Amino acid sequence: MINHLAIVGATGAVGREACDILTGRGIEPERISLLASSRSAGTLIPVGGTDLPVLELAEDSFAGVDYAIFSAGGDRSKQYASVATAAGAVVIDNSSAFRMDRDVPLVVPEVNPGDLAVHNGIIANPNCSTIIMNVAVWPLHKVNRVERMVISTYQAASGAGAAAMEELRSQTGDYLADRPIKPGVFPSQCAFNLFSHNTPIGPDGYNTEERKMIDETRKIFHDPAIAIGVTCVRVPVLRAHSESINLTFEKPITAGEVRDILASAPGVEVVDDVEARRFPMPIDASGRDDCMVGRIRQDVSQPDGRGIELFVCGDQLRKGAALNAIQILELLAS
Amino acid sequence: MINHLAIVGATGAVGREACDILTGRGIEPERISLLASSRSAGTLIPVGGTDLPVLELAEDSFAGVDYAIFSAGGDRSKQYASVATAAGAVVIDNSSAFRMDRDVPLVVPEVNPGDLAVHNGIIANPNCSTIIMNVAVWPLHKVNRVERMVISTYQAASGAGAAAMEELRSQTGDYLADRPIKPGVFPSQCAFNLFSHNTPIGPDGYNTEERKMIDETRKIFHDPAIAIGVTCVRVPVLRAHSESINLTFEKPITAGEVRDILASAPGVEVVDDVEARRFPMPIDASGRDDCMVGRIRQDVSQPDGRGIELFVCGDQLRKGAALNAIQILELLAS
Repeated sequence: MINHLAIVGATGAVGREACDILTGRGIEPERISLLASSRSAGTLIPVGGTDLPVLELAEDSFAGVDYAIFSAGGDRSKQYASVATAAGAVVIDNSSAFRMDRDVPLVVPEVNPGDLAVHNGIIANPNCSTIIMNVAVWPLHKVNRVERMVISTYQAASGAGAAAMEELRSQTGDYLADRPIKPGVFPSQCAFNLFSHNTPIGPDGYNTEERKMIDETRKIFHDPAIAIGVTCVRVPVLRAHSESINLTFEKPITAGEVRDILASAPGVEVVDDVEARRFPMPIDASGRDDCMVGRIRQDVSQPDGRGIELFVCGDQLRKGAALNAIQILELLAS
Repeated sequence: MINHLAIVGATGAVGREACDILTGRGIEPERISLLASSRSAGTLIPVGGTDLPVLELAEDSFAGVDYAIFSAGGDRSKQYASVATAAGAVVIDNSSAFRMDRDVPLVVPEVNPGDLAVHNGIIANPNCSTIIMNVAVWPLHKVNRVERMVISTYQAASGAGAAAMEELRSQTGDYLADRPIKPGVFPSQCAFNLFSHNTPIGPDGYNTEERKMIDETRKIFHDPAIAIGVTCVRVPVLRAHSESINLTFEKPITAGEVRDILASAPGVEVVDDVEARRFPMPIDASGRDDCMVGRIRQDVSQPDGRGIELFVCGDQLRKGAALNAIQILELLAS
């Protein structure tokens, strides 16, 4: 039962997706407050057949709110999450601000819903690439521990927000028309190009996105020893993320066993038709709730039978962000 | 000394690149025959300031030819390579037709030039993704054996030829203009999408492109035991391939050692400026001879210090195909 839901960052790509998902899942709070910066105040956003006006986010925005989904960036979360919890709301935060805090549950509902039992008013929604990989790997890890993963991502523009998606479109149009390329949201040309994920690089050589995938997975899986090597790359795709994942299990496992486990795993659709040559693709994963998993095969580079390779695509805006947050909301409110 | 050079498939993306590279490297055969199918006969292609007409490839095309570069697909190579060698030519074949033949050298000049010493008239040019990875990994393997690699590729449209590059451009234009998408060269939408490499999949679950990277590397490195797990993916980039590579060495090695080795390796440019956030990108690698290597870091998932992660970009049409063939030509003719 939800009396009053606030969506902070309602005009962003994730916020809009959340508004859309609410309706589809039949979630009908008594009241919804769409909040954003003053710049966006007054914008109308359709929620369940009604156009709701966006209100300016302020200190008094959370009076009477019982749940608030934050998707407005880490700074906004740091500034307003405590305001919301002080007003009595439970915050589901999509930023990275609180994910690694010891007293903040970091939850993928298909993996660790039990972690929602104890919290201090803030629940963190994991990084999009983390969620998509976790949904595919957890069902396997549960039955045969994954000792090590090597991941390479193919991340869509949507991960950097609505303006980044628009930049990919408009810059690609400029490229095709031989107009000069002006990078804006991204530091480098995104049209017909790809680049190492543009987050800061730490002293160990890993960028923040890669570090998130490592640290968050360890927290979500309750397995601080799982070894993860990862390279995060931005590709000129609009909205679904892809990941090439190489797994080393504790015990031998076959591709058939992996396929069987994933076929009945929640949030997973196995798309692995060698005959029809149908495998996960971002355009197919876009707008879908399930993460698609395919190219499941025994890794020939691990002759002891403990290696599996697979390829995953998941909608970054849905399961990678808004859907996961709303699934958390459903669990909290049920 | 080259008297008469034939370029078979002169109107294709690789053939045209070969014509361009010849001039740049000061290679001036007495005579050049540009050969292609009857459909392309009469086309004029600039070679060293002169427009040369394309002639129809036929049984009598190789009279007097001493070297022939074939880039017209495996079927054409199977049909005409023996015709060329019977006429006395040495064939440098860019197709996969002969690569794994025991008596055909498979050569990356930076890696195994010595293999050119013995041949039966045919030299095979390796797969583009193989070459680009080999140039980056061989200098390391030479000093500290690579036991295992896990590779994920980000392959440009150019690998499927000039028509595929044009399809990516035109289909992207269609997408942006909301016109219907009609896949042609590629079986799936390439605009703002990516997909598992569209080569046939064998009984072990690996597609032909992946299998080539494994088998060819073992042959080129003279190391049949090197373990390679690989996933090949086509991305909406026009002409340079990228590869995310995770290495396991026999003995511990540091990122600094790797950077030092690669800094003086032939055919490699280290582009790894964490400060300026400059790393390899396909648009920078396009039109360049060297393969760019960056994101060099100790793999945190291999705590014994034997793991390194890196990211490589190389021009698929140049080092991945035409340039490598011409480097072989130079070695043969020197």
